[in-house]
This record gives sequence, C-alpha cells and structure tokens, in this order.
Amino acid sequence: MRYCVIMCGGVGSRFWPASRSYRPKQFLDFMGTGRTLLQMTYDRILPLVPAERIIFITNAEYAPLISQQLPDVKEENILLEPTRRNTAPCIAWATHHILALDPEASIAVMPSDHLITRERVFLEAIERGFEFVESNSALLTLGIKPSRPEINYGYIQSGAPATANINRVKTFTEKPNLELAKIFFNSGEFLWNSGVFIWSGKALLQGLEEHCPEIARRFEAEPGIYCTDKEAAFINEAFPACPCISIDYALMEKATNVYVEEVDPGWSDLGTWGALYEHSPKNRMGNVTQECAIMSYDTSGCVFSESNPKKIIVVDGLKDYIVADTDDVLLICPMSNEQKIKQYVNDVSQTLGEKYL
Amino acid sequence: MRYCVIMCGGVGSRFWPASRSYRPKQFLDFMGTGRTLLQMTYDRILPLVPAERIIFITNAEYAPLISQQLPDVKEENILLEPTRRNTAPCIAWATHHILALDPEASIAVMPSDHLITRERVFLEAIERGFEFVESNSALLTLGIKPSRPEINYGYIQSGAPATANINRVKTFTEKPNLELAKIFFNSGEFLWNSGVFIWSGKALLQGLEEHCPEIARRFEAEPGIYCTDKEAAFINEAFPACPCISIDYALMEKATNVYVEEVDPGWSDLGTWGALYEHSPKNRMGNVTQECAIMSYDTSGCVFSESNPKKIIVVDGLKDYIVADTDDVLLICPMSNEQKIKQYVNDVSQTLGEKYL
Repeated sequence: MRYCVIMCGGVGSRFWPASRSYRPKQFLDFMGTGRTLLQMTYDRILPLVPAERIIFITNAEYAPLISQQLPDVKEENILLEPTRRNTAPCIAWATHHILALDPEASIAVMPSDHLITRERVFLEAIERGFEFVESNSALLTLGIKPSRPEINYGYIQSGAPATANINRVKTFTEKPNLELAKIFFNSGEFLWNSGVFIWSGKALLQGLEEHCPEIARRFEAEPGIYCTDKEAAFINEAFPACPCISIDYALMEKATNVYVEEVDPGWSDLGTWGALYEHSPKNRMGNVTQECAIMSYDTSGCVFSESNPKKIIVVDGLKDYIVADTDDVLLICPMSNEQKIKQYVNDVSQTLGEKYL
Repeated sequence: MRYCVIMCGGVGSRFWPASRSYRPKQFLDFMGTGRTLLQMTYDRILPLVPAERIIFITNAEYAPLISQQLPDVKEENILLEPTRRNTAPCIAWATHHILALDPEASIAVMPSDHLITRERVFLEAIERGFEFVESNSALLTLGIKPSRPEINYGYIQSGAPATANINRVKTFTEKPNLELAKIFFNSGEFLWNSGVFIWSGKALLQGLEEHCPEIARRFEAEPGIYCTDKEAAFINEAFPACPCISIDYALMEKATNVYVEEVDPGWSDLGTWGALYEHSPKNRMGNVTQECAIMSYDTSGCVFSESNPKKIIVVDGLKDYIVADTDDVLLICPMSNEQKIKQYVNDVSQTLGEKYL
C-alpha cells in the first residue's frame, strides 16, 4: 500500500526570529493563510494517502506542537526522534517502521515546510511517481522545473528518459553561483532538487545497505521490534549512534537506480525571507505583510513578520528590509544580508544565551 | 514660603509609541537611569523645597501613575485636572490653591519631562530666582544659554539687566528657521525658553487678571473653596470652561514685568527622539540604546527604545533611524522624519482606533 512520510523535525534557523527552535517554521502560519506549513502539507497529501497511512517523523520536543496542530493524527502515526541526525537516519527509521506494517509498501517522503501552490499538479506527480516505483526498483525524486536561475537551490541534471516525465539522474549538484545557475537554467536539463522522494520501502533499504551500511546496520532489528512497544527503546539506542547525514549525500548521489520526475507545482522551499518575499502576495507598495497590521510610508520591497496579531508596525523609509518581530526578539536587516541571519543567531546565543534560539 | 509646582499632565505625543496617552514620557525611565523623568524632577527640587510644599498638577487619569512612582507624595499635594487646558489654567489653579495655604507664597513652576544634568547650577538659579521675585513684582522665567542654533526651541531675547544674571525680557519668539536660529545664537542676546517660571503667587494672579481675565475670573472663588472639600467640585466646573492656552501666550508675552534669568544647567526639553539622541550616552557605534539589549551590525546614529526589558533587538544596516518598540506598536522611521510622528499617530488612530494613542 501507499504511505506518506512527512518530515517535520527541522529547526528553520534561516527564518529566525520568526522560526525558533521551540517553534520552527513548519509550525508557523507562514503565509498568513490560517494554516501552518505543516497543516498545509497534511491537507495537501490527504486526497492521495489516507490519514492512517501518513507517518510524521519529528524531534521528540515537537510532539506537543503536532498534537496541537493536527489533533486528529493518532499517536501511533508520529515517530519521535531522540536527537537530530538529518534526513538519512530519519528516513531509514520511518521505512523500517512502515515495512513492519506492510512489507510491500511504497512511500512518498516529503518535507513539511515547503510551499506548493498547484496542488493538483503536485498530487498527479506523486501518483505517477508511485506507479513508477511500484513497477521499477527505483529511487525517485521530484525535480522542479526552474523558473529562474536561482542560486539558493541544489540542482539535478536529468539524463536518459524512462517515461514521459521521468528520467534517469545524471548528477546532483550543489548550489551554483549565478553564472553557473544561468547555464543550468538555459540548458533545460537541470531541475531544482525538491527534497520530495518516492520509492518502495524495499528499494530504499537495499540502497542504504549498499551505499550507507553504517546507517543501515543501526536499524536492523529482529522481528517484533518495529511497531511494538519495544520500538522506542530500540530507537533511543540506534538513532543517536547514526552519523548526521542527509539522504542526498548518504544515498541519492551514490546509487545508480536514481530517477527524477519533472514537475512544475508552483513550488518554493521557503528557505529564506527572500524566497518568502518572492512567493507571497505583495501590497500596493510591494511589501509582504503576512496579514500583520502595517502602516507604511516610503517603504517598499520589505517583508514584515509579526507574531502578535494585535500589534501594529509603523514604518517609514525602509527599502528591501526584513522586519521580523516576536515577543522577545526584533530583527531588522537588509534582505540582501539574509545569509547573515545564522551569524546573528550565533552571536545572540553566545552573548545572551540559548533562550533566544 | 517657597512652593514648587510640577506640571505632569502632558501627553508627550512626539515620543510615540514609547510615550502613550496612558503613560506619557514623564512617567517613563527615559534615560535608562532607573528613575522616570517625573521622579528625577521631584528628586532634583527636594533639596530646595520640602516635599509638603511641592504640588503636582496633572490630568486626573494619571493619578495612579503618580501614586505608583512617588508613593511618599500625599494625596493633598496632587491636583487633578478634569480635562486638558494647556498650562495657563493649570498654573492659575495651582496658584490659587497655594495662596489659600500661604497668601505670601513664592512659587517655582516647572515641567516634569525635561532633562537637567547640572542640578546644582539649576538649584542655584531657582534659589536666586526666588530671591528676585520675593523683592520684585516680577514674572521670571529661566532662559537657557544656547549651545547651538537649535530650531526646535522658542527663544527669549533679553533686554536691560536687572541683576548679574537677570534681565528684562525684550521679546519671546516662536521656533525660528535655521538661518534665524544662527542669528539668535551668534547675537548672544537670545536664550532658550525653558518653561520654568518663578514668581510670587500674587504677581501671577495680578498678571492673569490684567492680561487674561477670561481665565482669571474662572478661578475667583469665595474663601473656603480652595484647599477644602469643595475645591474639586468648584474646579470641575471652572476648569473645563477655560480656554486652552499656554501661560506664554496668555501672560508672559503680554505682561511688562517679565524677566529672564540666564542659566546653563545642562538642559534639554527632550522634546523629540532627536533631542533624546543628542543628550544620551552613545555606544561605540554611535547608537543610543537606553539600556535595552541590542545586537547591531553596520548601524549608527540610531536611537532604540524597547519597553520589554527581556527583549533583544538585532539590527543590521540602519543609519540615523528611530526604532521604538512597545507591546503593541513597533515604530521604525528615519530620525530626519521625526516631525512626521504626529502624522503616524493620527493615521494609526484613524485607521485602527484610539487604543494605539
């Protein structure tokens, strides 16, 4: 049967201070729509995969946020990581868990903090992807048709075609510089790496055994461990012993049965304030206000984020700035300096303590 | 005997949103010293005038703030205006009240929201002023020796000398433009109008009777009204019927027995964020932070005001801005636009309601 794994354990530090370690980006109503990114991810996949076969995997500290935001999700559908180990160990565990429920399961794995505006296009791609991996021992990833020479995404170069939309992967690339991004964009061969994967559980485990045995062997267990009351204790032992590594590095860049499905679902990883700005509706001054109350003068190209719905922001004379206000942190910085946010966070936590993380 | 009237009913709207109609500037620890401007005003005059002869006059809505900030002040020393009528009616009432306690009283009247850094110089000037008005039927005002051609203050031109430091007043002037301010500054004849007055109660009432009878007659009462339990009812009738006018317009600019005492007490009216900036200690980046926690990058010439002592401000790439953050309003605007703050306040209250005033 078809399963979905929603990964929701990230910290979203590039959106600090709106995104905080105790309430990261996926748990925020980031687009001002009334639903958090996590809720939107769940709503989106429900027409394709029934609730009982959607598995959430997150850091243990976020369990209360999930219960609060998705009260209908059963506890047994939530896997709680005892520590952070990036996506490879996370996916390995979720796959073992699902295979204990259904050894023939096919699985779509997706992040919980991305924006997708064309849901039907997305779901059709997932559906086609399931069909492909159910008849091929393939590790499939969704590749987004680029709309611009973006330097903030990794790219996937597609090779020989397998079906109308699905090709073999020639290479995965790191984030390119602008010159290279333009070449990628104009070539028509390169797609954005979305972080959405589809495979059969078996193919995934085979791939890990072959290319990342140091993770694969940590999750090997006698029958009667996964999906029993022994699972938590087993994971609390196995998980922290894993290396901290992404599924891209651990598997996708090494395996030979890797495919990419091209799709254009109106996607953004919302990875930065700049990306949020690009993908959000703007008011007539060209500012993104996320439904917060703004009175602006001579101000354009800014994104405003305000955690207090009763607070107003009065702003004059700002161009291309990020203004993110929360109960205990106010950030004001030029949009062009958003890559410095990690430095700010680091400086603040070193000077004033971890409570501001 | 000598009395002091501390006027503390102003709204301080130029410091919005730090200064709010429910907690104006004089009730704030504006310099980050641990004492509010009102408390500093009280502390300053105490060596010269004993607590029982210091009268506070303010709008009725601020009575709780005064009790809270000056718990030792007796209720009988606080006069509560039923409505706002600027300084002339305020001073007329306070004078009648004091004369009922002591018909020979001499009185220093001062605002509660100014900064004075050289207290001894200030007190010596007040002392000399008392001596002068006790032997002359004079309306005396303190004139501050200018340190720059300031365009945000009214000026007083001094005329014929009366004593070493005290001269007759030739003219009062409105705030000048820069060209005129330079002429004033270079002439050596012009002093800043401080809003601090010294006179005998009798001379003040005589002046009002002659030059502002429409106010004077409102406060005429039978004996047994002022300083009795009938005073409040009488004032609630008389006060709102007064025109709304400053003592400068109502009396000082018209009377002939007006004198000015030159003094250099390290004074600022703290009338604007810019003035606050000028008079506050700056950190090594040239920012005024008022003891709030700031992490700044490439930021200079700014003033930061933060009502929440546990909140931090992280700011990058601002030059010469005001950033004033409170629980329900965040203001960011160029220092050079501070005269627009009244417009912001107006726009906000018209759009979002008076709760933001």
